[in-house]
Amino acid sequence: MAYELYYWDGLQGRGEFVRLALEEAQAPYVDVARGAKKNGLGTDALLAALDTEAPYPPYAPPFLKDGDLTIAQTANILFYLGPKLELAPRDEGLRYVANGLQLTIADLVTEAHDTHHPIASGLYYEEQKAEAKARATDFIDNRIPKFMGYFERVLAQNPHGPKHLVGGALTYVDLSLFQIVEGLRYAFPKATKHFADHYPHCVALHDAVETRPHIAAYLASPRRIPFNETGIFRHYPELDKAKR
Amino acid sequence: MAYELYYWDGLQGRGEFVRLALEEAQAPYVDVARGAKKNGLGTDALLAALDTEAPYPPYAPPFLKDGDLTIAQTANILFYLGPKLELAPRDEGLRYVANGLQLTIADLVTEAHDTHHPIASGLYYEEQKAEAKARATDFIDNRIPKFMGYFERVLAQNPHGPKHLVGGALTYVDLSLFQIVEGLRYAFPKATKHFADHYPHCVALHDAVETRPHIAAYLASPRRIPFNETGIFRHYPELDKAKR
Repeated sequence: MAYELYYWDGLQGRGEFVRLALEEAQAPYVDVARGAKKNGLGTDALLAALDTEAPYPPYAPPFLKDGDLTIAQTANILFYLGPKLELAPRDEGLRYVANGLQLTIADLVTEAHDTHHPIASGLYYEEQKAEAKARATDFIDNRIPKFMGYFERVLAQNPHGPKHLVGGALTYVDLSLFQIVEGLRYAFPKATKHFADHYPHCVALHDAVETRPHIAAYLASPRRIPFNETGIFRHYPELDKAKR
Repeated sequence: MAYELYYWDGLQGRGEFVRLALEEAQAPYVDVARGAKKNGLGTDALLAALDTEAPYPPYAPPFLKDGDLTIAQTANILFYLGPKLELAPRDEGLRYVANGLQLTIADLVTEAHDTHHPIASGLYYEEQKAEAKARATDFIDNRIPKFMGYFERVLAQNPHGPKHLVGGALTYVDLSLFQIVEGLRYAFPKATKHFADHYPHCVALHDAVETRPHIAAYLASPRRIPFNETGIFRHYPELDKAKR
């Protein structure tokens, strides 16, 4: 049976980390909110699944249904799917290492979101522009270097070599780091201009993921929603700045 | 062999969610940064473990060492420890449900932190007080009700009854919800004054956890660091406000 992915239509957002894994593995899945209403899909189906009186409702998208099981939270979905999609380390201990890295990626994603919404996610960006500029400046000066420097170090210290974050083969964490590099470059083209100099292993990993046949086909397909200003990574030129 | 918990000395912080599980289970553990330097413990030992050249270094505390394995990120540590401490659901599917809930608790913790640090974690609170007031106001008006209303609903919809978040027995997620109620009450005594009216199942769970013998003994011991203004939950009266 196909996996059912529930995520908002019209943006990559956190759902994209799950999509990349499903696409790389060529796993059958339904992107529920993007389906047709006449087939029982669409945003109404997503809202109904959130509003359920069933046990253990999810807090927010993304969530995944696999038969009777509903799994919420991006990193949790990937932890669950990883072994099934053969995108997790075989060693059980390393699966927890992968999950720890994925949760650090999740922290970076939250901070990227908060560059344009530092005060309230329920207010418009335009209502918190001054605060967004201050937070984005700190993000570029301090937080991106801390996170990216960390991932670069993890790659450099991987005993299997710097091509993967965990172990000697592709995992979902590598796919997520690709998405981080893509997203940061989209949102902050000036700040990320010298990424290849500062984080060569991360950029090499990004480039290797981008050219994998299933990923390349996905990125060229209409299933890949373009980055836009409703997602996590938003390009507001006034928040960007050059970084040596 | 005893588990080694690595977390900053002097604050409850994210380490507290792990401590509560270890204490409830009466598991042997060393709180590394709080140990004596002469025994190879203390903050220097924590910093050395962060600065390691070994594979898969952690990004930040808390992290746990269990023999050769180092596990980073609070929810990941609890997912790993849960079954070993008999504080996870027996059903494997429900373990992912528990992890999804724990990650939602983690999101709430991050937002609680950002009420006093909305612009930059590297700046002092005093440097971002106006923005903190705006963020804390939104947190009290919108975010606490959304998160707490969700946990109340999960308890109400639990087919085993409202005493536990997942299944019919205590799990680490229940212990973490106890800590959330404690922390929010400490930080925002005015805003949480009517918690028992709005979230009766959550408060009943909190009270039941608080009186469990191992938890009560822990809370009365010097191992429980008091809340203070270096942790996640901080009581700055100017950020609090009454909420009906």
